[in-house]
Amino acid sequence: MKALVYNGPRDVAVKDVPDAKIEKPTDVLVKITTTNICGSDLHMYEGRTDVKQGQILGHENLGVVIDAGSAVERVKVGDRVCLPFNISCGVCENCDRGLTGFCLIANPGRAGAAYGYSQMGPYSGGQAELLRVPYADFNCLVLPPGAEEKENDYVLLSDIFPTGYHATELARMRVGDSVVIYGAGPVGLMAAYSAIIKGASKVMVVDTHKDRLALAEKIGAIPIDNSDESAVDQVLSLTGKKGADCGCECVGYQCCDHTGKEVPNLTMNNLVKTVRATGGIGVVGVFMPKDPGGADELAKRGQIAFDFGKFFSKGQHMATGQTNVKAYNRLLCKLIAAGKASPSVIISHQLPLDKAPEGYANFDARKDGWTKVVLKTGA
Amino acid sequence: MKALVYNGPRDVAVKDVPDAKIEKPTDVLVKITTTNICGSDLHMYEGRTDVKQGQILGHENLGVVIDAGSAVERVKVGDRVCLPFNISCGVCENCDRGLTGFCLIANPGRAGAAYGYSQMGPYSGGQAELLRVPYADFNCLVLPPGAEEKENDYVLLSDIFPTGYHATELARMRVGDSVVIYGAGPVGLMAAYSAIIKGASKVMVVDTHKDRLALAEKIGAIPIDNSDESAVDQVLSLTGKKGADCGCECVGYQCCDHTGKEVPNLTMNNLVKTVRATGGIGVVGVFMPKDPGGADELAKRGQIAFDFGKFFSKGQHMATGQTNVKAYNRLLCKLIAAGKASPSVIISHQLPLDKAPEGYANFDARKDGWTKVVLKTGA
Amino acid sequence: MKALVYNGPRDVAVKDVPDAKIEKPTDVLVKITTTNICGSDLHMYEGRTDVKQGQILGHENLGVVIDAGSAVERVKVGDRVCLPFNISCGVCENCDRGLTGFCLIANPGRAGAAYGYSQMGPYSGGQAELLRVPYADFNCLVLPPGAEEKENDYVLLSDIFPTGYHATELARMRVGDSVVIYGAGPVGLMAAYSAIIKGASKVMVVDTHKDRLALAEKIGAIPIDNSDESAVDQVLSLTGKKGADCGCECVGYQCCDHTGKEVPNLTMNNLVKTVRATGGIGVVGVFMPKDPGGADELAKRGQIAFDFGKFFSKGQHMATGQTNVKAYNRLLCKLIAAGKASPSVIISHQLPLDKAPEGYANFDARKDGWTKVVLKTGA
Amino acid sequence: MKALVYNGPRDVAVKDVPDAKIEKPTDVLVKITTTNICGSDLHMYEGRTDVKQGQILGHENLGVVIDAGSAVERVKVGDRVCLPFNISCGVCENCDRGLTGFCLIANPGRAGAAYGYSQMGPYSGGQAELLRVPYADFNCLVLPPGAEEKENDYVLLSDIFPTGYHATELARMRVGDSVVIYGAGPVGLMAAYSAIIKGASKVMVVDTHKDRLALAEKIGAIPIDNSDESAVDQVLSLTGKKGADCGCECVGYQCCDHTGKEVPNLTMNNLVKTVRATGGIGVVGVFMPKDPGGADELAKRGQIAFDFGKFFSKGQHMATGQTNVKAYNRLLCKLIAAGKASPSVIISHQLPLDKAPEGYANFDARKDGWTKVVLKTGA
Repeated sequence: MKALVYNGPRDVAVKDVPDAKIEKPTDVLVKITTTNICGSDLHMYEGRTDVKQGQILGHENLGVVIDAGSAVERVKVGDRVCLPFNISCGVCENCDRGLTGFCLIANPGRAGAAYGYSQMGPYSGGQAELLRVPYADFNCLVLPPGAEEKENDYVLLSDIFPTGYHATELARMRVGDSVVIYGAGPVGLMAAYSAIIKGASKVMVVDTHKDRLALAEKIGAIPIDNSDESAVDQVLSLTGKKGADCGCECVGYQCCDHTGKEVPNLTMNNLVKTVRATGGIGVVGVFMPKDPGGADELAKRGQIAFDFGKFFSKGQHMATGQTNVKAYNRLLCKLIAAGKASPSVIISHQLPLDKAPEGYANFDARKDGWTKVVLKTGA
Repeated sequence: MKALVYNGPRDVAVKDVPDAKIEKPTDVLVKITTTNICGSDLHMYEGRTDVKQGQILGHENLGVVIDAGSAVERVKVGDRVCLPFNISCGVCENCDRGLTGFCLIANPGRAGAAYGYSQMGPYSGGQAELLRVPYADFNCLVLPPGAEEKENDYVLLSDIFPTGYHATELARMRVGDSVVIYGAGPVGLMAAYSAIIKGASKVMVVDTHKDRLALAEKIGAIPIDNSDESAVDQVLSLTGKKGADCGCECVGYQCCDHTGKEVPNLTMNNLVKTVRATGGIGVVGVFMPKDPGGADELAKRGQIAFDFGKFFSKGQHMATGQTNVKAYNRLLCKLIAAGKASPSVIISHQLPLDKAPEGYANFDARKDGWTKVVLKTGA
Repeated sequence: MKALVYNGPRDVAVKDVPDAKIEKPTDVLVKITTTNICGSDLHMYEGRTDVKQGQILGHENLGVVIDAGSAVERVKVGDRVCLPFNISCGVCENCDRGLTGFCLIANPGRAGAAYGYSQMGPYSGGQAELLRVPYADFNCLVLPPGAEEKENDYVLLSDIFPTGYHATELARMRVGDSVVIYGAGPVGLMAAYSAIIKGASKVMVVDTHKDRLALAEKIGAIPIDNSDESAVDQVLSLTGKKGADCGCECVGYQCCDHTGKEVPNLTMNNLVKTVRATGGIGVVGVFMPKDPGGADELAKRGQIAFDFGKFFSKGQHMATGQTNVKAYNRLLCKLIAAGKASPSVIISHQLPLDKAPEGYANFDARKDGWTKVVLKTGA
Repeated sequence: MKALVYNGPRDVAVKDVPDAKIEKPTDVLVKITTTNICGSDLHMYEGRTDVKQGQILGHENLGVVIDAGSAVERVKVGDRVCLPFNISCGVCENCDRGLTGFCLIANPGRAGAAYGYSQMGPYSGGQAELLRVPYADFNCLVLPPGAEEKENDYVLLSDIFPTGYHATELARMRVGDSVVIYGAGPVGLMAAYSAIIKGASKVMVVDTHKDRLALAEKIGAIPIDNSDESAVDQVLSLTGKKGADCGCECVGYQCCDHTGKEVPNLTMNNLVKTVRATGGIGVVGVFMPKDPGGADELAKRGQIAFDFGKFFSKGQHMATGQTNVKAYNRLLCKLIAAGKASPSVIISHQLPLDKAPEGYANFDARKDGWTKVVLKTGA
């Protein structure tokens, strides 16, 4: 089969590799039809992880079941399914509590597994013609009839739509709240979109990229351009000096100031400043426990100089971590099916699998207008 | 009336001062019968705040209503009442949501007011014969008949019992959880006591003071002596290497390592290490937005070098802040009245008001066995 | 002042009565600008309550503060305020828990008080030029600048918008849910509107009045015409035979079958049938503890023949009761101010106070197109 | 193997039957060591269900895994496991939400499956030497080391301890609440025990059987003897006329008045009377959608004459249904392991499997002192 393979830093290629296949009785085999490039694929693409040469990438996957192991009962050959990026067993203590992003069995020795991802277990990615899906009855979201017409909406259920939604849940957003979101990348935009669906009164999105801010405005949010470092003042001004009711971190440890310099504590301390006393902060941007390439000693140790005294005095709360996709993908699927949500509005480019390397290069360069890339396999 | 007055660093005295009196139609006047010295009084006692000479201290107060303003309806002269340390108006946006620790009206310009406390508004403390209680109908917890026999239990409803309970709520503790608590001072002990009442399966309390660890054991917790810096290992060992289900910070910015040196990020980073992935952390120990006397540049700015990468990778959450006493004091009052809770077990000394300075000196010195001091006013 | 006064069954008139005035230091006096006729006013209008001759009716009130008692601090003369229909003290055990619809002090001997309402305390209504507002600092919702331009939206915050919202909260509606609502009167329409704001995937509204069903469709719901008794089948068909995720009762004890006969258990048993197993039911339609005029022995005793075995087997849950308006009016106010909600879409008629009797007569007759009547005082 | 088999009304026998065996790759085979007779087994025993001759009964099962299907990963041969009475697939929409008592796959056509139970699917019971356990990785609770010493505690995790706990959750019991429980049978006692663990201030248990009331008192509850029909008055008197904060129904449709006559609405209407306004009611006693043998027309249709007007006026809420055992068995397991819970205090009789018929007869007769019967299989 053809698959997008990691060769080395900023070097990926579509190659012929052995077909994915059923390995356990609880697996299904999926013929991929749509698969995306995720912002977190760029960590690997840029060579800042220990991902190995030859790894097939891709954890935002949708396709049709073409074979099923002997223990599979619920999912049927022919079902069109969207796969959560987290692979989870469904039976460990964490899965039992809905914490499928922290499965204790799928990736022994760590909490949490994923397709085609550094340190997330021995699983190939889905930027390929075929994908082996473990614990298939638990992991497959079977899509409703007619789903092929909205594949670009449904494929976002694999990761970034639930991840954006998760940010608002971690922040404990409530109907009527004002929300400030740092980052207008795909996840930040999906957080904004989720906040609007959930009845926010005001959604502000902070970034420095004008194309992304324009998309934020398009989906109904207020764009806050931080090119002149005025985001904090703008948000305070828009919220009567009190700060937003809650906020979301959708950037991560590589966040940069307006000059482009990496300042890992920038977004978190700005959140403390721009969320009101007793408000909540949801963090889905990735922060690393260790970052050998970090800018200073704190960064190398995975620490930030955090305004904890202010955070405490304001009585704020925060919650973090990888999304448990299964916690949200069913409900968001219903909204798409009912025509109440069309998250594909943020997709900027649709390429055949063969052109995936071009997609990686442009997306990594944050080339103007390259917000989100979807790959089409087959046909 | 007689009252305990702040003269300067480590200098307090009981003096004759003008009587407290009704100032607004919503006030009541309370004749204090029991009032405590709180760990946070020591911040002022030690001269690390801007509290002014002549300030009457004391925010853990209980007594009998002897006069009431013209607008007071619910509370009656003769009622025995316990006063939440936070003074709150009951009608602002925060009070409406139960966030009485962040009242927007009682202390204009800041969120939150208290009796006899630096920067918490123009209110005298209750280490005195009389206390003016603002917004009395909202603030007074009227005690049940016979309360005078358990005053040492009920007086803890003014602050530390709710504060300890709050720590477990902020950590989102659930029935059956294992809990690790940093700090065996009065608040840490009340957090442990609360966790046990709420059905924790295992409560571990970390400290270096043997008298306090003995008290932790007495109330049913597992004492963890950190004198040899082994607390993290002990907690991990007691929880099958996974860490506790949740944890509480009950020390604050002056937390010290086993050698007695202030290390402001010590407890927070140990919590990240010893709480399991996806677990919660409740912070009620005080951290300051600025600490001019802090040990290094970070401390002076109110920042800590926080293991944020690990916190994120583990998908943990935390919540912080001053307790909203009214959120818990009614329910804890019912438990005391029903004989289900006797928090006074942690009170080590009961002194007449006249001897308050002796109480301050010994408590501040953490003299062996001086866990909690209660002052009795009147005959 | 002029006021709408109850004379007897189906007999109301606008008369000159003594001015409302400040009676307690915690009162304010409000010059009413907008006030509505509520469906529950009709219970009194029809003579099915013990309301006394001379009672001024009206509990959906909005106006400008023109005088304030000596203990009022937060609310200022000149503020434009919307008044929750429930009058609550803000300091009793129920108000402390946010249960302002069940205040223990405002109406001694019963839980809950209201303006101009049978058995809800000695308070005059607001279908008048002036209204005395007790516990004003607690009860007044101060509207944002420019509110006079959206008075017909804001006035709905006094009752039916929060009541409709409450129905969805009682049913524990979640984002993505399908919702079935029995009753397309003002409250049912507001429940549908709330469900849509909160991210429902599908909202179905059952009624037999075509004008009201048309309004339901206009706000984005699916109208279910029960004129042929097919509502249960239609809802099951629209939900894949499973039933809706949750449901709302917005009719009450006078619910009628398709022939117009009162069948008090009709909506509740239909809800049990058309809500899925484990789903929730929110009941805001009024059911009476006793109904001397009821159709049969059960009805007279305030009982219904309830499909409890089916309810239990399906593991359903339900919650009921008068709305605690203050729980929702602030957040809904923010949505109106931000242009995210315009509930006045359901208002069909706007009359001067003088023409209130005409409004009562037509609304009571459910005359075609008379969905909701707003009265304007002054000008 | 030997197994307890249903022959007909009040006729069960221990017989030799074909061995249970692995049927699917997701099954394990368990050698039963402890299995209980449940109150709900009596519905079948008494012949009031359509259970077929030859059915092996028993849904409260504990034992050791002796064989595992090819797809089983988590559970190992040799593990000592306690089995939830509900059999659930772990992958359907309801299981995904934790509603394992309403599994859509394990018992096609109905929501919910169980071992050895009428209408709950084609599964044999565990009052036998061997038991086939479907979806074993999802269903087995693996017990901690040393569990064999507390088997009588752990076996209660299969049903009645979680079911009693569920009742308190359905009632939304909170720390400090007063709780009234109707029924001092095994489930009612477990509800009382759970309420105490969760920090209730006062637990009242209503029944007419003096041996059971004595047990209620032994576990720390207040026994309320309803032999003279005074329960309602007693509860109101103990709660200052307000009623309990919440209540639990642990009797079901066969509830009887003090004369022994079946009155299906008795406990529910008494709960409405004795729970305070805005309080919650949890219903785990079984009510049937149809009861052909019911006393009157309502009962035959599965209806009760419910005091709905009073329920609404008090703004009460209720939740019902079969327990999702997996929602609670892990946490309760931790409490047993930590020595914080010893539910076996309510077990009155321990018999070898051979004597199961004697156990049935005495338990069914509610013979004095026969509260709960545990069967031991094997030497």
